[in-house]
Amino acid sequence: MISELSRHVGETVTLKGWLYHWRKGGKIWFLVLRDGSGYLQAVVSKADVPEAVWEAATGATQESTLEVSGIVKADPRSPGGVELGVADVKILDLCHDWPITPKEHGVDFLMSQRHLWLRSSRQVAVLKVRSEIESAIHDFFYARGYTRLDSPILTPAACEGTSSLFETQYTEDEKAYLSQSGQLYLEPAAAALGRVYCFGPTFRAEKSKTRRHLREFWMVEPEVAFLEIDGLMDLAEEFVKELTARVLDRRKEDLKRLERDVAKLEPVAAKRFPRISYREAVEMLQKKNMPVKFGDDLGGDEETALTEGFDTPIMVTRYPSSIKAFYMQPDAKDPDVALCLDMLAPEGYGEIIGGSQRIHDHDLLLSRIRQHDLPLEAFQWYLDVRKYGTFPHSGFGMGLERFVAWMCGVPHLRECIPYPRMLYRIYP
Amino acid sequence: MISELSRHVGETVTLKGWLYHWRKGGKIWFLVLRDGSGYLQAVVSKADVPEAVWEAATGATQESTLEVSGIVKADPRSPGGVELGVADVKILDLCHDWPITPKEHGVDFLMSQRHLWLRSSRQVAVLKVRSEIESAIHDFFYARGYTRLDSPILTPAACEGTSSLFETQYTEDEKAYLSQSGQLYLEPAAAALGRVYCFGPTFRAEKSKTRRHLREFWMVEPEVAFLEIDGLMDLAEEFVKELTARVLDRRKEDLKRLERDVAKLEPVAAKRFPRISYREAVEMLQKKNMPVKFGDDLGGDEETALTEGFDTPIMVTRYPSSIKAFYMQPDAKDPDVALCLDMLAPEGYGEIIGGSQRIHDHDLLLSRIRQHDLPLEAFQWYLDVRKYGTFPHSGFGMGLERFVAWMCGVPHLRECIPYPRMLYRIYP
Repeated sequence: MISELSRHVGETVTLKGWLYHWRKGGKIWFLVLRDGSGYLQAVVSKADVPEAVWEAATGATQESTLEVSGIVKADPRSPGGVELGVADVKILDLCHDWPITPKEHGVDFLMSQRHLWLRSSRQVAVLKVRSEIESAIHDFFYARGYTRLDSPILTPAACEGTSSLFETQYTEDEKAYLSQSGQLYLEPAAAALGRVYCFGPTFRAEKSKTRRHLREFWMVEPEVAFLEIDGLMDLAEEFVKELTARVLDRRKEDLKRLERDVAKLEPVAAKRFPRISYREAVEMLQKKNMPVKFGDDLGGDEETALTEGFDTPIMVTRYPSSIKAFYMQPDAKDPDVALCLDMLAPEGYGEIIGGSQRIHDHDLLLSRIRQHDLPLEAFQWYLDVRKYGTFPHSGFGMGLERFVAWMCGVPHLRECIPYPRMLYRIYP
Repeated sequence: MISELSRHVGETVTLKGWLYHWRKGGKIWFLVLRDGSGYLQAVVSKADVPEAVWEAATGATQESTLEVSGIVKADPRSPGGVELGVADVKILDLCHDWPITPKEHGVDFLMSQRHLWLRSSRQVAVLKVRSEIESAIHDFFYARGYTRLDSPILTPAACEGTSSLFETQYTEDEKAYLSQSGQLYLEPAAAALGRVYCFGPTFRAEKSKTRRHLREFWMVEPEVAFLEIDGLMDLAEEFVKELTARVLDRRKEDLKRLERDVAKLEPVAAKRFPRISYREAVEMLQKKNMPVKFGDDLGGDEETALTEGFDTPIMVTRYPSSIKAFYMQPDAKDPDVALCLDMLAPEGYGEIIGGSQRIHDHDLLLSRIRQHDLPLEAFQWYLDVRKYGTFPHSGFGMGLERFVAWMCGVPHLRECIPYPRMLYRIYP
């Protein structure tokens, strides 16, 4: 692989990959090959190779599949620190009419060509950052003794609301819905395993067509027995810090290719995140002359206004219970608010984490289920968690694509997942 | 956490967890606590604690939530090598009528109580082995430079057949289907990233009700550019060896609790897996007087007969193309067979891996799509992978639950996933 070549300086190697671009000289051509692991400059000198090799090298087109042999030479100016002195070039497949040309393409065109667009260096960089974050997520929880617990996708009832659910016929008599969160299934598992997390796809059949919405996206959700709201805030902060540090440490080249200003990410890994209450947030917004009062939800504009002036995410806690989910534990000292947190990323990337301490009192949860007109029968098993050896517990959810977008400095979520599913977009 | 106590011998600690069981003495009771990280024997001596503590300790019921304080003492006979000399016991929640009693329960009952059944030591052990395998999967691919690539779940067309697909309304005019494999989406990504894998849920709306079928299960699928069938066999073998070694190394206690005979797994990590062709397999079966001829698929009985006498998985390669998927590369030396492999686990656990080299010639794939009456329009993007810089490539899929069942020595897949989805089973 190209990424391993720096350990083979002076050796003759053979590589397979695709022609990415090239610079023509008169008698020396510079081919840039890619093999998925990296990019390699291969130097072909007319004087040094047989005529047939020269013709293959200069006749190859973009995205042609090549087999190239030569000697690895140290070259500090090259991305991987090496270049190849070419002795042989074989065209394994000559590519005709590669559709993604350097000219400006519309997004609809690129999305229809997503299976090919993936090969562009910017898309490769985003997907490598995404994969790195996924590995970091697993390593974070593994090191802390969490058990990964895959929540089901096919569920009999809605977690929150029903309007944005994808429905399918499970059996002749029964419908199922695609999960929007694994949380409810994690809570009983936290009683079994203490610290658990799930990581999987979630689904929203939303009609909205914004840059912040996907109909299918990946979410990571930890749930921890005996953890309360303050511990949850520590966990969320530690988590985001560790993922950010990992991306900065191991995906430098990709961030550079994306022209991401890493100076904007460094404070995230280093500095403490401010924690403010919703009541404080409302005051701050009012001082900025925004017409917000207690009980209002905070939209994108409010989130951006709140994060202004901060170079790390901020955590807004204790929202009014009336605008939050039924299962959130009320604050004993201020019963109108819930022991919840939203983490807002800087630079306008919005909410990346939402979480809460869960109600662990059986009767309080029962009354909330009734207040919210939820079908009691469908929630019996969820109530059982409070009936048999109940325990305080907390958890959060982080949408992967939003985090990837922020790390990469990419404004639209559609580039942060390999095959985005949006309204009117399910192909390829 | 209980799992950390061996590093705190001689210290006074406070723990929260659930009462799992107990042995009564006259003036000394032995409580076994669980907190998800492990099990702890807590010794309460009437002479050493206040009356109220003695009453709490002896009055607690199974699955009551407890807070216990005391001194950690080394005790080589205990599971974690320590026990607790109890100074204080607080009942945080007294559990009434825990439904899962030591008496024999029917499977239907246990499945309806799955959210509580998860707490039993056997279920905890299976889920820890599962989680360990998931970590090992990620570590295996990370160490080898793979990029994780999440294939979409909502897909516009069927990969293979349509009878077993879950369908959902994507937009008013358009239907979507739940994915049965991420492979087709991995292939274009292999051209972008070289080595990729996906790991996610897959769905089969099968009507069958066997111990080997789930309607929702997790699958890991690598796909590698420029890898051909022999390299694929090496990869599959190395993969299974590494996962098995990891389970043996890190989940000893869980395997013991499951009474798994680890002597049956040790050869898997150590010995080379036999590789036989389908043609050889047919001959072997005929010698065992089984009525099999070239062109027949091999069912469960045949698989079990083939693996008899082997203490590792075996790989059966080169099945007739007529009984395999349309995208499999034919063998140039024997065009009636495909360059595919099925890995069969020993002990009757059946197929755990299926894979193949993929057709990389555009026109051959096109003719196969036509032969199989697949909708050409839906496969245009898949054909494109062969149109622009085509390349030989191979991959396989492994069903996670089957692998977990084999490692744990559990006969039924329903215990190998937290919340199994089967025909007539979607609750809880």
